[in-house]
Amino acid sequence: MASAPLSDDSRFGLRRQVRLTGPLRLDSGAALVPVDIAYETYGRMNEDKSNVILICHALTGDQYVASDHPVTGKPGWWWRMVGDGKPVDPARHFIICANVIGSCMGSSGPASPDPATGEPYAMRFPVLTIADMVRAQALLLDYLGVDRLAAVIGGSMGGMQALSWPTIFPDRVESCIVIASTARHSAQNIAFHEVGRQAIMADPNWRGGDYYADAQVPSAGLAVARMAAHITYLSEAGLTEKFGRRLQGRDAKTFGFDADFQVESYLRHQGLSFVERFDANSYLYITRAMDYYDIAEDHGGSLATAFAPSRARFCLVSFDTDWLYPTAESRIIVHALNASGAQASFVELSSPFGHDAFLLECPELNRVVDGFLKGGRA
Amino acid sequence: MASAPLSDDSRFGLRRQVRLTGPLRLDSGAALVPVDIAYETYGRMNEDKSNVILICHALTGDQYVASDHPVTGKPGWWWRMVGDGKPVDPARHFIICANVIGSCMGSSGPASPDPATGEPYAMRFPVLTIADMVRAQALLLDYLGVDRLAAVIGGSMGGMQALSWPTIFPDRVESCIVIASTARHSAQNIAFHEVGRQAIMADPNWRGGDYYADAQVPSAGLAVARMAAHITYLSEAGLTEKFGRRLQGRDAKTFGFDADFQVESYLRHQGLSFVERFDANSYLYITRAMDYYDIAEDHGGSLATAFAPSRARFCLVSFDTDWLYPTAESRIIVHALNASGAQASFVELSSPFGHDAFLLECPELNRVVDGFLKGGRA
Repeated sequence: MASAPLSDDSRFGLRRQVRLTGPLRLDSGAALVPVDIAYETYGRMNEDKSNVILICHALTGDQYVASDHPVTGKPGWWWRMVGDGKPVDPARHFIICANVIGSCMGSSGPASPDPATGEPYAMRFPVLTIADMVRAQALLLDYLGVDRLAAVIGGSMGGMQALSWPTIFPDRVESCIVIASTARHSAQNIAFHEVGRQAIMADPNWRGGDYYADAQVPSAGLAVARMAAHITYLSEAGLTEKFGRRLQGRDAKTFGFDADFQVESYLRHQGLSFVERFDANSYLYITRAMDYYDIAEDHGGSLATAFAPSRARFCLVSFDTDWLYPTAESRIIVHALNASGAQASFVELSSPFGHDAFLLECPELNRVVDGFLKGGRA
Repeated sequence: MASAPLSDDSRFGLRRQVRLTGPLRLDSGAALVPVDIAYETYGRMNEDKSNVILICHALTGDQYVASDHPVTGKPGWWWRMVGDGKPVDPARHFIICANVIGSCMGSSGPASPDPATGEPYAMRFPVLTIADMVRAQALLLDYLGVDRLAAVIGGSMGGMQALSWPTIFPDRVESCIVIASTARHSAQNIAFHEVGRQAIMADPNWRGGDYYADAQVPSAGLAVARMAAHITYLSEAGLTEKFGRRLQGRDAKTFGFDADFQVESYLRHQGLSFVERFDANSYLYITRAMDYYDIAEDHGGSLATAFAPSRARFCLVSFDTDWLYPTAESRIIVHALNASGAQASFVELSSPFGHDAFLLECPELNRVVDGFLKGGRA
């Protein structure tokens, strides 16, 4: 496997990027060549390479799990979980987080140049699956000389990758932590994603995906997609607690269509700030991968069959107010793990914050992850 | 109150429309002149005018509660509840259903001509409230010679109007049936509506609302708005039961962006068919009215105070899988009614169909409405 040196692409503020020749065979039958992967690492690999933890990111996440984001300047998206004195600690672990393929932070995606033409792939980029993202991560591990993961950890779409790892590479995973996630996308999950995709494709700037040549990107459609999705990340109770029906810097309704309510203003901000850091085509590709995700479907309809070859320990965490991937979805996974004879622990945590709880202050989550990692070799 | 004769506008297929001179004073401080109201009636008013039932429609509903829709040709939206041998029966009741102001089926709305210019109001139409819709209905009752309603009935936004009626006209309502509704719009309710409005306003064809002069209407934005809203009308379990992850007329995934899943195809159809019968600006105005809706807020923060002047009997119905206006919202109303000393019955019905259950086959709902109406004078 050939590779390019570490990159220092100031456009992305990338710290580490590798070009792997592949080819990466995809579930669609297509092959991806080359395979660029942008990643961050923290800590050092120990001599017996037994301290490696792979962290998988969510739909709109990135490799900057514990580093400032190069575009927004914000702290890493999981600084509460990863860092000095945290459950995932660079003093003890060699931590890897890679941008998923299909995304837009340095790994191969629709904005990458198509080697056949030199022009951006746009919608000519092959449709991916969660398993394809995992196989790309495995290529990166090969490149880094990592055979086995002490742990693979992820929340939301990161949890989908984490859960897929032992089903695809049963010999390479010792433990697996899956937070606020699911073993398959439900009809309602697919429906929300389809709304987002339709919003993007309805934006005249989208132009079939070929918008990279100028500054006219489908921002309006992508912002609407983000707004719709963002509602699903929060609980009804959390929204009520945070915003209720409070008005936006005024004492009375304006009887107009400006953002009267704080929740409107908040959502608009979420939409507008998102388009500054994310590519609309990547949003299409990654949501599609999530919708295609169904581990049981890929194993003759049996989730237990999927896990059978693995000897990994599993830790499942759900949140009681998460209605995107509710606790029932984690229970389905736990039942399958039990049926497959796997060692599995499961806890439902209480939080007012819905699906997003895994990204927010949650000492119980840190205790669960810390205890689980210390209970194993990691 | 002057009025124009019944209309026979073939464009809308209207059967009854009246032009009332008003003025209708609105909550915003503006006045609406004239006030066009399109309505349907069924049955005959009895001699003592004691058999009048007003039915209020939901966000995208209309006056065709039990008549074929003139655009779609489909049966009236509540034919299961209204008709011969049904709980609301033209053999016994004089039934009125009027298109709400702000809508687009013949009542005054943004597509109506602004008398100041002769051009469509578009976004110069005044912003409305649910109470304004109710006051317009009262104008229609005045015109029809109806002093008192034996019952006012509505589901969803229709329930908001029904619940508002005794708070605004305590002497004109004898009983009130509120189904799958709420006394105020929550932050999550507002958030979903805001996504819809942003989708419409992001459509370049929207043009600040001035799109009536040509055929370039903001269909794409309105379709996205409808798709997002439609998800909230269905339960997760109902979507799973109806569609699950079933593919659309194919055996395998296409690894593309066409509608692979049946639920995608269904949602796209919902969006596309909606734009043929609904005006985007009306969608903006009516969602705004719903977001402004908070009966307690209009009565010093006390819902019980709002109901205190009324001596109406109340019947509240919720559905266990309705996550748009969940049972907890109906309970809040019932508690306030109890505190105000009102006679109130309440039942949570079980249905797999979420919010939309009130429009679908539900014999229990018919039994509840029938029993409640027969328990009173109606």
